[in-house]
Amino acid sequence: MQSHAAHAHAADPLIKKHRTADATLTVTVDGAPLAGQEVLVAQRDHKFLFGCIGFDFIPLANGELHAEGQAGPGGATGSLGEASADQADHPADEHLAELWFDLFNFATLPFYWGRFETVRGRPDTERLLKTARWFADRGVPVKGHPLAWHTVTADWLMDLPNAEIAREQVARIQREVGGFAGLIDMWDVINEVVIMPIFDKYDNGITRVAREIGRIPMVRMVFDAAREANPNATLLLNDFDMSAAYECLIEGVLEAGIKIDVLGLQSHMHQGYWGEEKTLATIERFARYGLPIHFTETTLLSGHIMPADIVDLNDYQIPDWPSTPEGEARQADEVVRHYKTLLSHPQVQAMTYWGMSDGGWLGAPGGFVRRDGTPKPSYDALRSLVKGEWWLAPTKMATDDQGRVRFNGFLGEYEVTAAGRTATFSLGEPGEAAADVAL
Amino acid sequence: MQSHAAHAHAADPLIKKHRTADATLTVTVDGAPLAGQEVLVAQRDHKFLFGCIGFDFIPLANGELHAEGQAGPGGATGSLGEASADQADHPADEHLAELWFDLFNFATLPFYWGRFETVRGRPDTERLLKTARWFADRGVPVKGHPLAWHTVTADWLMDLPNAEIAREQVARIQREVGGFAGLIDMWDVINEVVIMPIFDKYDNGITRVAREIGRIPMVRMVFDAAREANPNATLLLNDFDMSAAYECLIEGVLEAGIKIDVLGLQSHMHQGYWGEEKTLATIERFARYGLPIHFTETTLLSGHIMPADIVDLNDYQIPDWPSTPEGEARQADEVVRHYKTLLSHPQVQAMTYWGMSDGGWLGAPGGFVRRDGTPKPSYDALRSLVKGEWWLAPTKMATDDQGRVRFNGFLGEYEVTAAGRTATFSLGEPGEAAADVAL
Repeated sequence: MQSHAAHAHAADPLIKKHRTADATLTVTVDGAPLAGQEVLVAQRDHKFLFGCIGFDFIPLANGELHAEGQAGPGGATGSLGEASADQADHPADEHLAELWFDLFNFATLPFYWGRFETVRGRPDTERLLKTARWFADRGVPVKGHPLAWHTVTADWLMDLPNAEIAREQVARIQREVGGFAGLIDMWDVINEVVIMPIFDKYDNGITRVAREIGRIPMVRMVFDAAREANPNATLLLNDFDMSAAYECLIEGVLEAGIKIDVLGLQSHMHQGYWGEEKTLATIERFARYGLPIHFTETTLLSGHIMPADIVDLNDYQIPDWPSTPEGEARQADEVVRHYKTLLSHPQVQAMTYWGMSDGGWLGAPGGFVRRDGTPKPSYDALRSLVKGEWWLAPTKMATDDQGRVRFNGFLGEYEVTAAGRTATFSLGEPGEAAADVAL
Repeated sequence: MQSHAAHAHAADPLIKKHRTADATLTVTVDGAPLAGQEVLVAQRDHKFLFGCIGFDFIPLANGELHAEGQAGPGGATGSLGEASADQADHPADEHLAELWFDLFNFATLPFYWGRFETVRGRPDTERLLKTARWFADRGVPVKGHPLAWHTVTADWLMDLPNAEIAREQVARIQREVGGFAGLIDMWDVINEVVIMPIFDKYDNGITRVAREIGRIPMVRMVFDAAREANPNATLLLNDFDMSAAYECLIEGVLEAGIKIDVLGLQSHMHQGYWGEEKTLATIERFARYGLPIHFTETTLLSGHIMPADIVDLNDYQIPDWPSTPEGEARQADEVVRHYKTLLSHPQVQAMTYWGMSDGGWLGAPGGFVRRDGTPKPSYDALRSLVKGEWWLAPTKMATDDQGRVRFNGFLGEYEVTAAGRTATFSLGEPGEAAADVAL
């Protein structure tokens, strides 16, 4: 077993290899090289998707904070998603938004059917549209989660025969994916298919259909609906089951000719950090399919760890789960190790952290920010990577006689400023890169 | 939780429903009804396959017992299979054969590639042909196990590139399935595909291929080869993984259009009897695919149970694993409960017990017969079902004026004798059945 430091050391050159470009930037002004001048180069965004759920910003984005304690417009009491039970009482404010946008460039918004359309025919579309637009206005792409899942699905489906449940599921996907196209072009289309037909905690319409038609026809049905509604969307298959079962499911789905754009891997670590070895082994097993990988749901705790003998994490219900100083130090360390591990593998394209603030799912201290709104060490540790070690702060460079500057930078969006003019350019692929900018 | 007695009670009417027929037998002699006469009706065989491995009968069937301690013809030191490490020193004799044929009507013979063809080009075909014929001569159909597996596979495959390993695998299947056709028409074509590409205990040629081409193409390749070599054969997919992973694999294989005849479920219970509830739930999950189910490898111990924290059963190596009186009583009880559970579900068509005698795989006391050759209580308990409660012993019946007798009997082969003549008939399907016999 390598030490943590050795692991981190091993990741760094791979991160440089897979995540940065050796850029040669040629600057011209009015068609002529800007030779022998000083230019200011600055990174604007990462190509890697550093994501987080944005569930708790729905009230802020909808101007509902002044009406705290009241239900939202139309009496909708929340499509905040499963993480929101506590957060509904503490919706995120401008202060949290500032912290959020300083760290993340990718948001996941909740489309749990049972909350999005508690009453059949009254979907919470407007509030989610406003929230998606709020993120888009701030330059943050949004993913919708999930379109089909047996948990938190609509109770009223159980009044319908299976064929009609299936039709409602397809219609629901067409409505959301079509209606949000342009604002939301990435979807967790179906969640946790491995367990879907054998889920036995409670009856629900989606499990009934999955049991009747089988997993692969279920995946085909929902992917076909989403693809048709928005051919430009990026469509994910998402699961928490990291065993051979998910591999077998993926192989069956791909053999059946269903096009999956991205494989989603959940990694809620309420029972302890996986460590580099397990994380890399997991990525390797799913990288075999040649598809991009998103870590879609990651949690690392800053309090005590859930006992290992809990099989369904939902079974762990405790009145108070505090964040502790030792836990916060451990979390900061694990956050750095986990993000470094993910970025060291070229197929991982996104990482979504499951909740900025404490008190989300299971009341766990899994956030980067305490309940009192102060950032934890994990926040600073991740920021020192995303906006520090992996970031080009505004940097003065001198062009050569052909108007060129050379630098190594993380893949993403950049701007260059000289003589009072600014232009942007991208570094899209690792390795040697040439960019031409006309100011 | 129901009591054992309640469970057994629940199974009995289902066994009657699914495994017996209410037969009306019409007996004619020289074209005329044998009216008002006494006939003797007796069962000859069960339709249900009460199976056991026959590995340890290879020396007896090949006349090698006189040469005990010597290698077999051609210097082949054994294709006895994994269960044979100890049994090779104690090959089964005529006494064990008598016990075997009094209880079982279905044998599994070993085709582990690494033992069947230790040296490339020198397969142990003749000894296995003799053994298969020895069983066939005694009216017992034989299944071959397995044609493709990453464990106990041929070491020499590792000297070959993957494409050639795959060709050798196909050729090996064609050779065995074609060469034994007529004597062996049932095969465990591929074993443990769920773990095959991620098996990491040691390097082997089959895992290499499975990792490169994927599970479903691997299954297609070996099933195509077997089907082509013997279109009349019954071909099984077999696995020990009873989780959703095997379900996902099966769904993928079926969606890919690969024809599977029977699903094989292993149930080595070295860590304790599953119980009726888990057994039935497992059957139900795999019955969804509409295919017949075989319990292919079952072990129940008459000694102490392996600790639950052992993940790979092969890791449990102890010098002595004795059969105990308490263990033997428990095993007998569990054998009755397990067989009753299996027969209570209509899709289960076979049950193969993994070893008549103690000292097989892992040296476990999993047999029906002790090392000294005496039958355990489990032997008598199972025999009292198979040849007692579920069996029509020779029974005198009086025909009515149209030559008919009526009786309820387990599905299988029967004979009727009257006036010094004997004829046979079958009861093939449960429910009302009519059979006409001309003496």
